[in-house]
Amino acid sequence: MLIYGMQDSGNCYKPCLLLAHLGGGYDWIEVDTLGGESRSEHFRRMNPHGKTPVLELDDGRYLFESNAILCYLADGTPWLPQDRYERARTLAWMFFEQNSLETPVGTLHFWKSVKKDAARHAEEFARRSPQGMAGFATMERHLADSDWFGGERITVADIALYACTHVAAESGYDMMAFPRMQAWLARVAAQPRHVPMERMGRGVP
Amino acid sequence: MLIYGMQDSGNCYKPCLLLAHLGGGYDWIEVDTLGGESRSEHFRRMNPHGKTPVLELDDGRYLFESNAILCYLADGTPWLPQDRYERARTLAWMFFEQNSLETPVGTLHFWKSVKKDAARHAEEFARRSPQGMAGFATMERHLADSDWFGGERITVADIALYACTHVAAESGYDMMAFPRMQAWLARVAAQPRHVPMERMGRGVP
Repeated sequence: MLIYGMQDSGNCYKPCLLLAHLGGGYDWIEVDTLGGESRSEHFRRMNPHGKTPVLELDDGRYLFESNAILCYLADGTPWLPQDRYERARTLAWMFFEQNSLETPVGTLHFWKSVKKDAARHAEEFARRSPQGMAGFATMERHLADSDWFGGERITVADIALYACTHVAAESGYDMMAFPRMQAWLARVAAQPRHVPMERMGRGVP
Repeated sequence: MLIYGMQDSGNCYKPCLLLAHLGGGYDWIEVDTLGGESRSEHFRRMNPHGKTPVLELDDGRYLFESNAILCYLADGTPWLPQDRYERARTLAWMFFEQNSLETPVGTLHFWKSVKKDAARHAEEFARRSPQGMAGFATMERHLADSDWFGGERITVADIALYACTHVAAESGYDMMAFPRMQAWLARVAAQPRHVPMERMGRGVP
Protein backbone atom coordinates (compact mmCIF):
# COMPACT_ATOMS: atom_id res chain seq x y z
CA MET A 1 0.00 0.00 0.00
CA LEU A 2 0.99 3.59 -0.60
CA ILE A 3 0.01 6.60 1.51
CA TYR A 4 0.17 10.04 -0.06
CA GLY A 5 0.44 12.44 2.86
CA MET A 6 1.93 15.48 4.48
CA GLN A 7 4.13 15.60 7.59
CA ASP A 8 2.58 17.32 10.63
CA SER A 9 -0.98 16.60 9.41
CA GLY A 10 -3.21 14.94 11.99
CA ASN A 11 -5.38 13.48 9.24
CA CYS A 12 -2.31 11.87 7.61
CA TYR A 13 -1.09 10.55 10.97
CA LYS A 14 -4.30 8.51 11.39
CA PRO A 15 -3.58 5.67 8.88
CA CYS A 16 0.08 5.50 10.01
CA LEU A 17 -0.98 5.05 13.64
CA LEU A 18 -3.58 2.40 12.81
CA LEU A 19 -1.18 0.49 10.53
CA ALA A 20 1.40 0.44 13.35
CA HIS A 21 -1.21 -1.34 15.50
CA LEU A 22 -2.30 -3.69 12.72
CA GLY A 23 1.28 -4.45 11.70
CA GLY A 24 0.58 -3.51 8.10
CA GLY A 25 3.43 -2.20 6.00
CA TYR A 26 3.13 0.84 3.75
CA ASP A 27 5.23 3.18 1.67
CA TRP A 28 4.94 6.94 2.08
CA ILE A 29 4.88 9.60 -0.60
CA GLU A 30 5.27 13.12 0.75
CA VAL A 31 2.97 15.55 -1.06
CA ASP A 32 3.96 19.21 -1.38
CA THR A 33 0.58 20.51 -0.27
CA LEU A 34 1.85 24.03 0.40
CA GLY A 35 3.28 24.08 -3.13
CA GLY A 36 -0.09 23.16 -4.62
CA GLU A 37 0.70 19.54 -5.53
CA SER A 38 -2.46 18.15 -3.88
CA ARG A 39 -4.60 20.47 -6.00
CA SER A 40 -2.99 19.41 -9.28
CA GLU A 41 -4.93 17.68 -12.03
CA HIS A 42 -2.87 14.55 -11.43
CA PHE A 43 -3.64 14.44 -7.69
CA ARG A 44 -7.34 15.15 -8.22
CA ARG A 45 -7.62 11.92 -10.18
CA MET A 46 -6.84 10.18 -6.86
CA ASN A 47 -8.92 12.53 -4.68
CA PRO A 48 -11.22 14.97 -6.50
CA HIS A 49 -11.19 17.20 -3.39
CA GLY A 50 -7.42 17.67 -3.63
CA LYS A 51 -6.47 16.80 -0.07
CA THR A 52 -4.22 14.36 1.75
CA PRO A 53 -4.18 11.60 2.86
CA VAL A 54 -4.90 9.29 -0.06
CA LEU A 55 -4.45 5.53 0.22
CA GLU A 56 -3.42 3.63 -2.92
CA LEU A 57 -4.29 -0.05 -2.68
CA ASP A 58 -2.10 -2.76 -4.14
CA ASP A 59 -4.56 -3.13 -7.04
CA GLY A 60 -4.20 0.56 -7.93
CA ARG A 61 -7.51 1.77 -6.55
CA TYR A 62 -7.60 4.90 -4.38
CA LEU A 63 -9.34 5.88 -1.18
CA PHE A 64 -9.58 9.38 0.28
CA GLU A 65 -10.88 10.95 3.53
CA SER A 66 -8.77 9.92 6.51
CA ASN A 67 -11.64 8.39 8.48
CA ALA A 68 -12.87 6.34 5.51
CA ILE A 69 -9.32 5.04 5.12
CA LEU A 70 -9.35 4.05 8.82
CA CYS A 71 -12.65 2.17 8.35
CA TYR A 72 -11.33 0.36 5.29
CA LEU A 73 -8.09 -0.71 7.00
CA ALA A 74 -9.87 -1.72 10.23
CA ASP A 75 -12.69 -3.64 8.53
CA GLY A 76 -12.77 -7.19 9.88
CA THR A 77 -10.46 -6.39 12.83
CA PRO A 78 -11.36 -5.52 16.44
CA TRP A 79 -10.55 -1.87 15.62
CA LEU A 80 -13.96 -1.55 13.91
CA PRO A 81 -16.74 -3.27 15.92
CA GLN A 82 -18.69 -6.06 14.21
CA ASP A 83 -21.86 -5.31 16.17
CA ARG A 84 -24.17 -3.06 14.15
CA TYR A 85 -24.94 -0.65 17.00
CA GLU A 86 -21.35 -0.44 18.28
CA ARG A 87 -20.09 0.14 14.73
CA ALA A 88 -22.58 2.98 14.28
CA ARG A 89 -21.50 4.53 17.62
CA THR A 90 -17.89 4.31 16.46
CA LEU A 91 -18.79 6.07 13.21
CA ALA A 92 -20.74 8.70 15.16
CA TRP A 93 -17.59 9.81 16.98
CA MET A 94 -15.68 9.88 13.70
CA PHE A 95 -18.32 12.10 12.06
CA PHE A 96 -18.25 14.28 15.20
CA GLU A 97 -14.47 14.56 14.81
CA GLN A 98 -14.73 15.73 11.20
CA ASN A 99 -17.63 18.11 11.80
CA SER A 100 -16.91 19.56 15.23
CA LEU A 101 -13.17 19.24 15.86
CA GLU A 102 -11.20 18.93 12.63
CA THR A 103 -11.66 22.58 11.66
CA PRO A 104 -11.24 24.29 15.09
CA VAL A 105 -8.40 22.01 16.17
CA GLY A 106 -6.78 20.56 13.04
CA THR A 107 -6.82 23.83 11.09
CA LEU A 108 -5.33 25.70 14.05
CA HIS A 109 -2.50 23.17 14.17
CA PHE A 110 -1.97 23.74 10.44
CA TRP A 111 -1.55 27.52 10.80
CA LYS A 112 0.80 27.12 13.75
CA SER A 113 2.98 24.10 12.92
CA VAL A 114 2.83 23.78 9.15
CA LYS A 115 2.41 27.32 7.85
CA LYS A 116 4.11 28.88 10.92
CA ASP A 117 1.86 31.93 10.53
CA ALA A 118 1.42 33.27 14.08
CA ALA A 119 -0.89 36.14 13.11
CA ARG A 120 -3.26 33.92 11.14
CA HIS A 121 -3.13 31.35 13.93
CA ALA A 122 -4.17 33.96 16.51
CA GLU A 123 -7.03 35.14 14.31
CA GLU A 124 -8.27 31.58 13.69
CA PHE A 125 -7.93 30.72 17.38
CA ALA A 126 -10.08 33.70 18.37
CA ARG A 127 -12.78 32.68 15.90
CA ARG A 128 -12.75 28.91 16.22
CA SER A 129 -11.68 28.02 19.76
CA PRO A 130 -15.20 28.22 21.25
CA GLN A 131 -16.25 25.40 18.89
CA GLY A 132 -13.14 23.43 19.85
CA MET A 133 -13.80 23.91 23.57
CA ALA A 134 -17.41 22.74 23.09
CA GLY A 135 -16.12 19.62 21.35
CA PHE A 136 -13.67 18.87 24.16
CA ALA A 137 -16.44 19.35 26.73
CA THR A 138 -18.51 16.76 24.83
CA MET A 139 -15.62 14.30 24.88
CA GLU A 140 -15.02 14.95 28.59
CA ARG A 141 -18.69 14.22 29.29
CA HIS A 142 -18.53 10.93 27.38
CA LEU A 143 -15.40 9.87 29.27
CA ALA A 144 -17.23 10.11 32.60
CA ASP A 145 -18.81 6.73 31.79
CA SER A 146 -16.39 5.14 29.30
CA ASP A 147 -12.68 4.57 28.82
CA TRP A 148 -12.99 4.59 25.00
CA PHE A 149 -15.19 6.17 22.34
CA GLY A 150 -16.30 3.31 20.12
CA GLY A 151 -17.07 0.59 22.66
CA GLU A 152 -15.39 -1.47 25.36
CA ARG A 153 -11.94 -1.29 23.77
CA ILE A 154 -9.87 1.10 21.67
CA THR A 155 -11.19 1.50 18.10
CA VAL A 156 -10.71 3.69 15.05
CA ALA A 157 -12.86 6.33 16.78
CA ASP A 158 -10.08 6.76 19.36
CA ILE A 159 -7.45 6.88 16.59
CA ALA A 160 -9.37 9.62 14.73
CA LEU A 161 -10.00 11.69 17.87
CA TYR A 162 -6.46 11.21 19.20
CA ALA A 163 -4.82 12.34 15.95
CA CYS A 164 -6.91 15.49 15.99
CA THR A 165 -6.74 16.37 19.70
CA HIS A 166 -3.33 15.31 21.03
CA VAL A 167 -1.75 18.46 19.57
CA ALA A 168 -4.49 20.81 20.79
CA ALA A 169 -2.44 22.15 23.71
CA GLU A 170 0.33 23.18 21.26
CA SER A 171 -2.28 25.26 19.44
CA GLY A 172 -3.16 27.17 22.60
CA TYR A 173 -6.07 25.17 24.03
CA ASP A 174 -6.12 24.91 27.83
CA MET A 175 -6.42 21.14 28.17
CA MET A 176 -6.03 21.30 31.96
CA ALA A 177 -9.77 21.94 31.98
CA PHE A 178 -10.32 18.37 30.70
CA PRO A 179 -8.69 15.88 33.09
CA ARG A 180 -10.52 12.83 31.71
CA MET A 181 -9.34 13.73 28.20
CA GLN A 182 -5.78 13.97 29.51
CA ALA A 183 -6.11 10.48 30.98
CA TRP A 184 -7.62 9.15 27.73
CA LEU A 185 -4.83 10.70 25.64
CA ALA A 186 -2.32 8.96 27.93
CA ARG A 187 -4.21 5.64 27.57
CA VAL A 188 -4.03 5.84 23.77
CA ALA A 189 -0.31 6.72 23.83
CA ALA A 190 0.39 3.83 26.25
CA GLN A 191 -0.98 1.17 23.90
CA PRO A 192 1.52 -1.43 22.69
CA ARG A 193 2.79 -0.56 19.18
CA HIS A 194 1.76 3.10 19.51
CA VAL A 195 3.89 5.43 17.36
CA PRO A 196 4.10 9.18 17.96
CA MET A 197 3.23 11.64 15.19
CA GLU A 198 6.93 12.35 14.62
CA ARG A 199 7.27 8.81 13.24
CA MET A 200 4.47 9.12 10.68
CA GLY A 201 5.43 8.08 7.20
CA ARG A 202 8.36 5.96 8.34
CA GLY A 203 6.62 2.60 8.06
CA VAL A 204 5.94 0.14 10.83
CA PRO A 205 8.66 -0.31 13.50
CA MET B 1 -38.18 4.06 16.56
CA LEU B 2 -38.19 7.67 17.64
CA ILE B 3 -36.42 10.56 15.94
CA TYR B 4 -35.67 13.69 17.96
CA GLY B 5 -35.26 16.44 15.37
CA MET B 6 -35.85 19.96 14.19
CA GLN B 7 -37.88 21.07 11.17
CA ASP B 8 -35.85 22.69 8.36
CA SER B 9 -32.66 20.90 9.41
CA GLY B 10 -30.91 19.07 6.60
CA ASN B 11 -29.25 16.72 9.09
CA CYS B 12 -32.65 15.79 10.54
CA TYR B 13 -34.12 15.30 7.06
CA LYS B 14 -31.58 12.54 6.31
CA PRO B 15 -33.07 9.70 8.43
CA CYS B 16 -36.60 10.66 7.37
CA LEU B 17 -35.66 10.42 3.70
CA LEU B 18 -33.86 7.09 4.12
CA LEU B 19 -36.72 5.60 6.16
CA ALA B 20 -39.17 6.61 3.41
CA HIS B 21 -37.11 4.50 0.99
CA LEU B 22 -36.73 1.61 3.42
CA GLY B 23 -40.40 1.71 4.39
CA GLY B 24 -39.53 1.95 8.07
CA GLY B 25 -41.97 3.67 10.39
CA TYR B 26 -40.91 6.19 13.00
CA ASP B 27 -42.34 8.71 15.42
CA TRP B 28 -41.05 12.26 15.51
CA ILE B 29 -40.34 14.44 18.51
CA GLU B 30 -39.75 18.09 17.65
CA VAL B 31 -36.93 19.56 19.73
CA ASP B 32 -36.92 23.28 20.55
CA THR B 33 -33.30 23.76 19.56
CA LEU B 34 -33.57 27.56 19.38
CA GLY B 35 -35.00 27.52 22.91
CA GLY B 36 -32.01 25.54 24.20
CA GLU B 37 -33.75 22.17 24.63
CA SER B 38 -31.04 20.23 22.77
CA ARG B 39 -28.40 21.61 25.12
CA SER B 40 -30.31 20.59 28.28
CA GLU B 41 -28.93 18.05 30.72
CA HIS B 42 -31.76 15.69 29.74
CA PHE B 43 -30.97 15.87 26.03
CA ARG B 44 -27.22 15.51 26.57
CA ARG B 45 -27.86 12.09 28.09
CA MET B 46 -29.01 11.08 24.57
CA ASN B 47 -26.33 13.04 22.68
CA PRO B 48 -23.49 14.52 24.76
CA HIS B 49 -22.87 17.08 21.99
CA GLY B 50 -26.39 18.51 22.37
CA LYS B 51 -27.48 18.40 18.74
CA THR B 52 -30.26 16.89 16.65
CA PRO B 53 -31.03 14.42 15.18
CA VAL B 54 -31.01 11.64 17.76
CA LEU B 55 -32.43 8.20 16.98
CA GLU B 56 -33.98 6.25 19.87
CA LEU B 57 -34.11 2.53 19.12
CA ASP B 58 -36.97 0.34 20.27
CA ASP B 59 -34.75 -1.07 23.04
CA GLY B 60 -34.14 2.45 24.41
CA ARG B 61 -30.59 2.90 23.14
CA TYR B 62 -29.64 6.15 21.40
CA LEU B 63 -27.63 7.06 18.34
CA PHE B 64 -26.44 10.53 17.34
CA GLU B 65 -24.72 12.10 14.32
CA SER B 66 -26.97 12.06 11.26
CA ASN B 67 -24.58 10.11 9.04
CA ALA B 68 -23.98 7.43 11.69
CA ILE B 69 -27.77 7.08 11.98
CA LEU B 70 -27.94 6.61 8.18
CA CYS B 71 -25.27 3.89 8.33
CA TYR B 72 -27.07 2.10 11.16
CA LEU B 73 -30.44 2.16 9.37
CA ALA B 74 -28.94 1.14 6.01
CA ASP B 75 -26.77 -1.66 7.38
CA GLY B 76 -27.62 -4.90 5.57
CA THR B 77 -29.58 -3.12 2.81
CA PRO B 78 -28.41 -2.04 -0.69
CA TRP B 79 -28.25 1.55 0.63
CA LEU B 80 -24.89 0.71 2.31
CA PRO B 81 -22.65 -1.40 0.05
CA GLN B 82 -21.53 -4.80 1.33
CA ASP B 83 -18.25 -4.68 -0.57
CA ARG B 84 -15.46 -3.42 1.70
CA TYR B 85 -14.02 -0.93 -0.83
CA GLU B 86 -17.39 0.39 -1.99
CA ARG B 87 -18.51 0.80 1.62
CA ALA B 88 -15.37 2.80 2.38
CA ARG B 89 -15.94 5.00 -0.69
CA THR B 90 -19.50 5.60 0.49
CA LEU B 91 -18.22 6.60 3.92
CA ALA B 92 -15.60 8.86 2.30
CA TRP B 93 -18.31 11.00 0.70
CA MET B 94 -20.19 11.13 4.00
CA PHE B 95 -17.09 12.35 5.87
CA PHE B 96 -16.53 14.86 3.05
CA GLU B 97 -20.09 16.08 3.55
CA GLN B 98 -19.60 16.65 7.28
CA ASN B 99 -16.16 18.24 6.94
CA SER B 100 -16.41 20.28 3.75
CA LEU B 101 -20.09 21.03 3.16
CA GLU B 102 -22.12 20.84 6.36
CA THR B 103 -20.73 24.07 7.79
CA PRO B 104 -20.62 26.26 4.64
CA VAL B 105 -23.95 24.99 3.30
CA GLY B 106 -25.94 23.62 6.25
CA THR B 107 -25.06 26.46 8.61
CA LEU B 108 -25.96 29.04 5.96
CA HIS B 109 -29.35 27.40 5.55
CA PHE B 110 -29.78 27.58 9.32
CA TRP B 111 -29.19 31.34 9.49
CA LYS B 112 -31.50 31.98 6.56
CA SER B 113 -34.40 29.58 7.02
CA VAL B 114 -34.42 28.71 10.70
CA LYS B 115 -33.09 31.83 12.46
CA LYS B 116 -34.27 34.16 9.66
CA ASP B 117 -31.29 36.42 10.42
CA ALA B 118 -30.45 38.07 7.08
CA ALA B 119 -27.48 40.06 8.38
CA ARG B 120 -25.82 37.05 9.98
CA HIS B 121 -26.58 34.99 6.87
CA ALA B 122 -24.84 37.56 4.65
CA GLU B 123 -21.81 37.64 6.93
CA GLU B 124 -21.58 33.83 7.05
CA PHE B 125 -22.06 33.60 3.27
CA ALA B 126 -19.16 35.99 2.65
CA ARG B 127 -16.88 33.98 4.91
CA ARG B 128 -17.91 30.42 4.08
CA SER B 129 -19.12 30.33 0.48
CA PRO B 130 -15.64 29.80 -1.03
CA GLN B 131 -15.43 26.52 0.91
CA GLY B 132 -18.93 25.57 -0.24
CA MET B 133 -18.11 26.33 -3.88
CA ALA B 134 -14.94 24.21 -3.62
CA GLY B 135 -17.04 21.34 -2.30
CA PHE B 136 -19.56 21.65 -5.14
CA ALA B 137 -16.69 21.71 -7.66
CA THR B 138 -15.45 18.44 -6.17
CA MET B 139 -18.88 16.86 -6.49
CA GLU B 140 -19.22 18.14 -10.08
CA ARG B 141 -15.87 16.55 -10.94
CA HIS B 142 -16.93 13.19 -9.47
CA LEU B 143 -20.21 13.27 -11.42
CA ALA B 144 -18.31 13.45 -14.72
CA ASP B 145 -17.72 9.69 -14.40
CA SER B 146 -20.50 8.49 -12.11
CA ASP B 147 -24.23 8.87 -11.62
CA TRP B 148 -24.01 8.30 -7.84
CA PHE B 149 -21.51 8.87 -5.04
CA GLY B 150 -21.23 5.55 -3.24
CA GLY B 151 -21.20 3.09 -6.12
CA GLU B 152 -23.30 1.92 -9.05
CA ARG B 153 -26.61 2.80 -7.39
CA ILE B 154 -28.00 5.34 -4.95
CA THR B 155 -26.67 4.92 -1.40
CA VAL B 156 -26.62 6.72 1.93
CA ALA B 157 -23.81 8.91 0.52
CA ASP B 158 -26.34 10.41 -1.92
CA ILE B 159 -28.87 10.85 0.89
CA ALA B 160 -26.33 12.71 3.05
CA LEU B 161 -25.12 14.93 0.21
CA TYR B 162 -28.62 15.60 -1.10
CA ALA B 163 -29.96 16.67 2.30
CA CYS B 164 -27.11 19.14 2.64
CA THR B 165 -26.97 20.53 -0.92
CA HIS B 166 -30.52 20.58 -2.31
CA VAL B 167 -31.24 23.81 -0.42
CA ALA B 168 -27.94 25.50 -1.35
CA ALA B 169 -29.52 27.69 -4.02
CA GLU B 170 -31.95 29.09 -1.41
CA SER B 171 -28.91 30.15 0.61
CA GLY B 172 -27.52 32.15 -2.29
CA TYR B 173 -25.22 29.66 -4.02
CA ASP B 174 -25.17 29.89 -7.82
CA MET B 175 -25.88 26.26 -8.65
CA MET B 176 -26.15 27.03 -12.38
CA ALA B 177 -22.37 26.65 -12.41
CA PHE B 178 -22.80 22.94 -11.61
CA PRO B 179 -25.00 21.29 -14.28
CA ARG B 180 -24.07 17.71 -13.35
CA MET B 181 -25.02 18.43 -9.75
CA GLN B 182 -28.38 19.78 -10.95
CA ALA B 183 -28.96 16.54 -12.86
CA TRP B 184 -27.92 14.44 -9.85
CA LEU B 185 -30.23 16.40 -7.51
CA ALA B 186 -33.06 15.69 -9.98
CA ARG B 187 -32.15 11.97 -10.10
CA VAL B 188 -32.32 11.72 -6.31
CA ALA B 189 -35.67 13.54 -6.18
CA ALA B 190 -37.08 11.29 -8.95
CA GLN B 191 -36.51 8.08 -6.98
CA PRO B 192 -39.64 6.10 -6.10
CA ARG B 193 -40.70 6.80 -2.47
CA HIS B 194 -38.70 10.07 -2.32
CA VAL B 195 -40.18 12.58 0.14
CA PRO B 196 -39.38 16.28 0.06
CA MET B 197 -37.93 18.04 3.10
CA GLU B 198 -41.32 19.63 3.83
CA ARG B 199 -42.62 16.18 4.73
CA MET B 200 -39.90 15.36 7.26
CA GLY B 201 -41.14 14.16 10.59
CA ARG B 202 -44.52 13.07 9.21
CA GLY B 203 -43.71 9.37 9.03
CA VAL B 204 -43.68 7.19 5.94
CA PRO B 205 -46.39 7.83 3.30
